[in-house]
Amino acid sequence: MTTITTNDEGRQEAFEFVNNNESTWYPPVNANPEGKLMLYNSLTKSKVPFVPRDGNHVSWYGCGPTVYDASHLGHARNYITFDILRRIMSDYFKYNVQMVMNITDIDDKIILSGRRAYLVAEKKKNISTLDQALIDEVQQALEFYVTKELKLDFSADIIFNPSPEIKTKISTEPKFGMKWKEATKALDALKEAEKALKSGKLSHEDAFKLIDQSKDVLAILLDDKYGRSVNDPKVFRNHAAYWENDFMMDMDRLNVRRPDVLTRVSEFIPEIVEFIKNIIDNGYAYAASDNAEGEQNSSVYFDVEAFDANPNHQYVKLDPKSKGNSELLDDGEGSLGAKLLGKRKKSHFALWKASKPGEPSWPSPWGMGRPGWHIECSVMASEILGKEIDIHSGGIDLTFPHHDNELAQSEAHFGNRQWINYFLHSGHLHIEGSKMSKSLKNFISIKEALNMYSPRQMRLLFLMQRWDSPSDYKADSMNEAKAVETKISNFFSNINAKLRESKDKESDSNGQRNFKDDELNLIETLKKAQTQVHEALLDSFNTPRALDAIKDLVTDTNQYMSARRDNADPQAITSVGKYVTYMCRIFGLAPDTTKEIGWGSLDSEAESQGANKEDIALPYLRVLSNFRDQVRSLARGEEGEDGKALKNALLTLCDSIRNEVLPPLGVVLDDQEDGKALIKFIDSKEWLKQKEEKEAKLREKERQKKERALAAEKKRLEKLEKGKVSPQEMFRTEDRRSEFSEWDENGFPTKDKDGNELTKNKKKNLEKELKKQQVLHEEYLKYIASKSS
Amino acid sequence: MTTITTNDEGRQEAFEFVNNNESTWYPPVNANPEGKLMLYNSLTKSKVPFVPRDGNHVSWYGCGPTVYDASHLGHARNYITFDILRRIMSDYFKYNVQMVMNITDIDDKIILSGRRAYLVAEKKKNISTLDQALIDEVQQALEFYVTKELKLDFSADIIFNPSPEIKTKISTEPKFGMKWKEATKALDALKEAEKALKSGKLSHEDAFKLIDQSKDVLAILLDDKYGRSVNDPKVFRNHAAYWENDFMMDMDRLNVRRPDVLTRVSEFIPEIVEFIKNIIDNGYAYAASDNAEGEQNSSVYFDVEAFDANPNHQYVKLDPKSKGNSELLDDGEGSLGAKLLGKRKKSHFALWKASKPGEPSWPSPWGMGRPGWHIECSVMASEILGKEIDIHSGGIDLTFPHHDNELAQSEAHFGNRQWINYFLHSGHLHIEGSKMSKSLKNFISIKEALNMYSPRQMRLLFLMQRWDSPSDYKADSMNEAKAVETKISNFFSNINAKLRESKDKESDSNGQRNFKDDELNLIETLKKAQTQVHEALLDSFNTPRALDAIKDLVTDTNQYMSARRDNADPQAITSVGKYVTYMCRIFGLAPDTTKEIGWGSLDSEAESQGANKEDIALPYLRVLSNFRDQVRSLARGEEGEDGKALKNALLTLCDSIRNEVLPPLGVVLDDQEDGKALIKFIDSKEWLKQKEEKEAKLREKERQKKERALAAEKKRLEKLEKGKVSPQEMFRTEDRRSEFSEWDENGFPTKDKDGNELTKNKKKNLEKELKKQQVLHEEYLKYIASKSS
Repeated sequence: MTTITTNDEGRQEAFEFVNNNESTWYPPVNANPEGKLMLYNSLTKSKVPFVPRDGNHVSWYGCGPTVYDASHLGHARNYITFDILRRIMSDYFKYNVQMVMNITDIDDKIILSGRRAYLVAEKKKNISTLDQALIDEVQQALEFYVTKELKLDFSADIIFNPSPEIKTKISTEPKFGMKWKEATKALDALKEAEKALKSGKLSHEDAFKLIDQSKDVLAILLDDKYGRSVNDPKVFRNHAAYWENDFMMDMDRLNVRRPDVLTRVSEFIPEIVEFIKNIIDNGYAYAASDNAEGEQNSSVYFDVEAFDANPNHQYVKLDPKSKGNSELLDDGEGSLGAKLLGKRKKSHFALWKASKPGEPSWPSPWGMGRPGWHIECSVMASEILGKEIDIHSGGIDLTFPHHDNELAQSEAHFGNRQWINYFLHSGHLHIEGSKMSKSLKNFISIKEALNMYSPRQMRLLFLMQRWDSPSDYKADSMNEAKAVETKISNFFSNINAKLRESKDKESDSNGQRNFKDDELNLIETLKKAQTQVHEALLDSFNTPRALDAIKDLVTDTNQYMSARRDNADPQAITSVGKYVTYMCRIFGLAPDTTKEIGWGSLDSEAESQGANKEDIALPYLRVLSNFRDQVRSLARGEEGEDGKALKNALLTLCDSIRNEVLPPLGVVLDDQEDGKALIKFIDSKEWLKQKEEKEAKLREKERQKKERALAAEKKRLEKLEKGKVSPQEMFRTEDRRSEFSEWDENGFPTKDKDGNELTKNKKKNLEKELKKQQVLHEEYLKYIASKSS
Repeated sequence: MTTITTNDEGRQEAFEFVNNNESTWYPPVNANPEGKLMLYNSLTKSKVPFVPRDGNHVSWYGCGPTVYDASHLGHARNYITFDILRRIMSDYFKYNVQMVMNITDIDDKIILSGRRAYLVAEKKKNISTLDQALIDEVQQALEFYVTKELKLDFSADIIFNPSPEIKTKISTEPKFGMKWKEATKALDALKEAEKALKSGKLSHEDAFKLIDQSKDVLAILLDDKYGRSVNDPKVFRNHAAYWENDFMMDMDRLNVRRPDVLTRVSEFIPEIVEFIKNIIDNGYAYAASDNAEGEQNSSVYFDVEAFDANPNHQYVKLDPKSKGNSELLDDGEGSLGAKLLGKRKKSHFALWKASKPGEPSWPSPWGMGRPGWHIECSVMASEILGKEIDIHSGGIDLTFPHHDNELAQSEAHFGNRQWINYFLHSGHLHIEGSKMSKSLKNFISIKEALNMYSPRQMRLLFLMQRWDSPSDYKADSMNEAKAVETKISNFFSNINAKLRESKDKESDSNGQRNFKDDELNLIETLKKAQTQVHEALLDSFNTPRALDAIKDLVTDTNQYMSARRDNADPQAITSVGKYVTYMCRIFGLAPDTTKEIGWGSLDSEAESQGANKEDIALPYLRVLSNFRDQVRSLARGEEGEDGKALKNALLTLCDSIRNEVLPPLGVVLDDQEDGKALIKFIDSKEWLKQKEEKEAKLREKERQKKERALAAEKKRLEKLEKGKVSPQEMFRTEDRRSEFSEWDENGFPTKDKDGNELTKNKKKNLEKELKKQQVLHEEYLKYIASKSS
């Protein structure tokens, strides 16, 4: 019998088992037992222990974007944040996470934006030149816009000279100010177009210019006039698909992992209809015509009170403060639903919207229509993940009404008391301390931000701030992020240099023990950092604290390395370097395919995906092989070919390798005096850009040259035209004869139109004219002679 | 107040906290709560829960190799097994594992093997040709060997014609049989050498051949004669370093991760001395002279009884059955310690061995000496990991006495009751059902095995069998491993092909929802497999069960894909593919840098380590650039150069690119009829081997040609030599004059030595001889004339 003794603390269970010796085993005690993973849950407004429903599987639904425009920094904040959390959950805490994200491809914003973009595009397609009709239409659009959007009586003067009241409104009401700007832009475009038309210009380009510059104003009129005729579902689907792809490209650049399952509303209509039917059956929703003219199509609304009356249910769990906030409610119903008439109470919300002409629609028991905004998430999440889901995430601005309505719908459908166990909301993003908004001119798209900062720097910013707190994108914090990046980059290159060094002298130090007290201390420091990081991440993913622990570890290791100078122990620094690399990979700061120590380039991850040695080498080898083929072919050419021609051919070939073939592959050969070219790796995109710029300049020069030639030719033709009239006839042409009343035998005027003799001065001027015409006429005669010969 | 309700099962703690709304949150319950990680612990002979001492840090000491020979399959079994366990612990269960491994570079086996290898090498260095002295020495060595190792009275006849008793012994006692074989080999070599010597051969090669073929026999005599004179510590250190490096290379090829800290005994002598001193102070060890002749150097022994008498301690915890097994005890004491005389009891074991001449030694309070075998692990493990260690691992054959003695020493030193909490032993390796041993002729080195099977196949073998059970290396199981490899490889290529396909038609299917019931089922299957794998790994790393779950998942996914034909959902199969890839990486079946889905090549991991795009492209670009440089230089050469010479130069260059430059880089250009060469990637090592073989053949031909030329020249010179004698003198030379008694005026014999006329026949023969000599002499005269002119 082996005895397993229960230890003092009594925490371990005692095990007994038969064994053929009598040894005692003391079950170990963990001096620092691991804490639980705590999550800040919006449903409790507190950190609670995370308990998945099933083993270590985690189901996670994340609200995806509504795709109708370029993604902005608010998107970056949200999706990078949850990417970090997801990576920690799956890569660090080793949960089997299944992440589902939706794409909202049916939505009032998409309908409006898609329809308007389509109508403007159609207008451009059908226009040939700038004409009065187009100008009139834009003028009409501007009047419509000023009346409808700015709610002012239209006059051009109002826009050019706004009254003091209007001026105040512009500076105090951002939305009004933005719309004002659109109106002035359109008016400017109109003035310009009118000028162009007067000057006789009838060009295609001018028409496009007018449409482009006034498009936000024009679109509203076009939509009012023709919007109802846009019924092809492809219009909306294509618009959404374009912006979905644009969003995905942005996410890829930001190293945000794609969801395991991506769902699109348009693919779940039958399921949504079933889901709504079930809510009606359960007594929590009703269909009602929202149209006074008595159309057949009805909308379906959720009955908030009926739901709340059931003691098992509760309406508004996440943001009770906002319950009944009509601005938020209206916003949630969408701009096309403002007139929903069948709704019994203002607090009710649409599950299904009867579609009007110009809105995409699908069949349903309530006629042709489309899903409301909130229902899609309830349905898609439940379809893939079931009736109880571990985690739901989204931006804080979606809390009410979107997420609260989602919860109500799903719980009304399933009749369960808790559809989502953990609701995670990422904090607001501020730009230099203010809310980001298009009207505040601090609206920054992801692409714009990526022109200034790298994906890694952006991610560091969000790692340095708590995921559930507001985050500030400002020069200061970005500089801090850059400093952290530099610190870690230097650390990696430093370690790798030391490791190369120690490898070089490995044979010397064979038998030399390096791992002593300093190294044991460094490993203790590493363990301390690992513990701190672990505890920080268990504490509701406290990445700023984890990052601080890593920075301290880097500092301490740098100190160790500089103290040890040339003989830092390779094993000790490898342990630290690997751990820092590992954590960078966990945080998405390094590509998943990172080598042992370091974090490579995030930008090029996509590029290097799936590339193996042969894939990489092949393009260069193709160049080599083709080059060699051509050299051989020249060398085996006709015997008659002489040395000089051959040499020229070879040199041309060599130049083309350098100038044409290699640069697009990211390689430049820099020919040197000594005949040995330097190999340089370059950014082929940058090279291409420069090349294109150069070519554009050349084309521009060419164009200018041609233009000058054309102008000269025109002048010549004008001169010839002028020279057609003979000097004898020049003062007796239709145009001029009325100036005079008598001419001499050479056709030279002698008296003015009133029968008076010409003044001396007048005569002198006419003689000058005559001389000029004599020259022109002579040239004309020469031209005629040359043409007939 | 938000209420957090305790659920029915009452497992969750209840949380209460202030919140400004009155919602209720129901803490979730895990329907399949995660089990504990159980480890089969040799200290309890059962699976017990794994509890690390400090947070999620795990200290782990693994017994490393004694480095004096090539590593064999037993090593592969042990180190691959623990590599798998370590990867699961750190990469899957996310413990911060610190793994320390020792290299035993001081050991009786190393001393003997190092000394013998050194003495044989010295002998070879000092020998110039085969001579009687060398033959005598080998003869003497053979007699010594037969007497000492075979314990027989020597006679050559005994070896060539063994008696029936000896024959029985050869076939029943493997060790005797092996030694017998060595003796016969040496005797054969001796016979051959004697023959060579008699035939007048005195070559260097024959001397080497004799030494090489009898080296195991010769070494024993040399060691007996000169062993004591080998006192340079470098002899032993270099021997160990050579085999350490050889071991590490084998491990790298097998994708076994290097330890975090590698320790060598030779680097820890002062710490070992301190450790032993402390054990003596604690009353569990004593110093004693082991030398009857009263040398000053003493050994130190561990007093087993004193230790066992302390109720806190226990001698032999792991393998009580073997306690007192004298064969194992003797083996543990080493072959050079057989005569240890100062030991008070046979069960005591050496902590410190007094060194005799010819053994490396270090100063100590007990005179010059070296550590015993077991003490090194106690000291090195404790130095790096402290006085309580989570895990100690090693092969099952090390259990007693090595590991039991380690435990006793460390607990005696620290005065603690449990130095190691979990002792893991990998099972025996069998070869086709039998124990592997040099004497059974089934001894397989890692390098030999890798000629037949890939590192991945070897690893699969050990994954398919429990780490703590005996494992069998046999054709059947290797075929099974290959089948699993093929199955998973096909699965990966299949998925990747489907993914490429679906990417190609992505735009078509835009808006087409694929993720329906079949896909939900597939994800359920994935989750089931993940749970099974997780539970299997929690169950003391049951890799065979985990692998079965993965194989089933692959089968099910294959079925899904074939049922779905062209429209398998890319997201669903990506989820499965990523998980299988992930597990392959966890098991070390895929390189750590594996891309999304697939397992690449394990062999090339080392090669591709740290290689980025530029590193890979650079060698090919260098070729291209140099080639271009040379073409340019030719093309810009002297004006006078004509086309033909230039062409020849170009063609030579092109040939050299193909034949000399590219193949070592793993590329072959295959020139085609159409002038466009095919690019082929090849195994550059294989190419080099073939090239060398070709060159060797050419060299051999050259050599034979030269030999023939030399022989012809020799013959010519012999003929000239013979032709020196003029025909007139030829029958009167010293050699021949005694044949005759009278000659005519031309020097032709007329009477034989007895004064009789020559017979007709005799005369005829002599005339023939004369004619021949006339020709030879004429040639000689010509030669002389040609030389003087």
